[in-house]
Amino acid sequence: MGGVKGEIDLAAVRYDTATGLVPVVVQDAETGAVLMLAYANREALKRTLATGYAWFWSRSRQEYWRKGATSGNVQEVVELRLDCDGDTVLYLVRPHGPACHTGEETCFYRRLTHGGVEGPIPRGVVQEHEDARSGD
Amino acid sequence: MGGVKGEIDLAAVRYDTATGLVPVVVQDAETGAVLMLAYANREALKRTLATGYAWFWSRSRQEYWRKGATSGNVQEVVELRLDCDGDTVLYLVRPHGPACHTGEETCFYRRLTHGGVEGPIPRGVVQEHEDARSGD
Repeated sequence: MGGVKGEIDLAAVRYDTATGLVPVVVQDAETGAVLMLAYANREALKRTLATGYAWFWSRSRQEYWRKGATSGNVQEVVELRLDCDGDTVLYLVRPHGPACHTGEETCFYRRLTHGGVEGPIPRGVVQEHEDARSGD
Repeated sequence: MGGVKGEIDLAAVRYDTATGLVPVVVQDAETGAVLMLAYANREALKRTLATGYAWFWSRSRQEYWRKGATSGNVQEVVELRLDCDGDTVLYLVRPHGPACHTGEETCFYRRLTHGGVEGPIPRGVVQEHEDARSGD
């Protein structure tokens, strides 16, 4: 799933200047499934590194959030990665139970379409020019 | 990598109320590697659905951005998914070349650590309580 070429410390993380947050992609380290996207601040990243469990900052509740603290569906974090420009983090995890509050393994369990107008995008079909239709 | 359980149209996407954007996780449909995180608005999602290529909104350049338009490293999008609360999109892609401007396959090629103070998190080590150390 993409090799590690270097190590870097928390000082390299670029938090959003307005919110102090960085988006965190959570991926199942075994299956490769993308499980969820959440947000962390510096303290949440430190708690994750220190405890080995996925911590986030809840934007809705405005509080630190250890994933699974209530449900029991915690995520052991086996590796943290940072992207090239430092503004997105990736947690590679071993999930203890489903990631989604709906009970699905991943929060990304719905396919996004044009709502019946065009259906799912065709595999391998290439159109170089923008579609001129305005409504969907 | 997590099964699809339903379909939903673009009307279900919840864009950030301040920016009109939604984060997009880009994953290699074959290898499972998480390649990058970028942002899209409604029009960028429509262009992606219409053309089968990954379109985004560039926050730095404030313009629509077809990934690979300059480098040639385009991304064919084989599926779009939406998360449970509608505020994050997942593009499953067939990349034509590396995703990262550095030439790496994925932008997430660096491991994030405590910078030598504590090193990478230990695998399988569990600490139930918050680490009380303040500095890193």
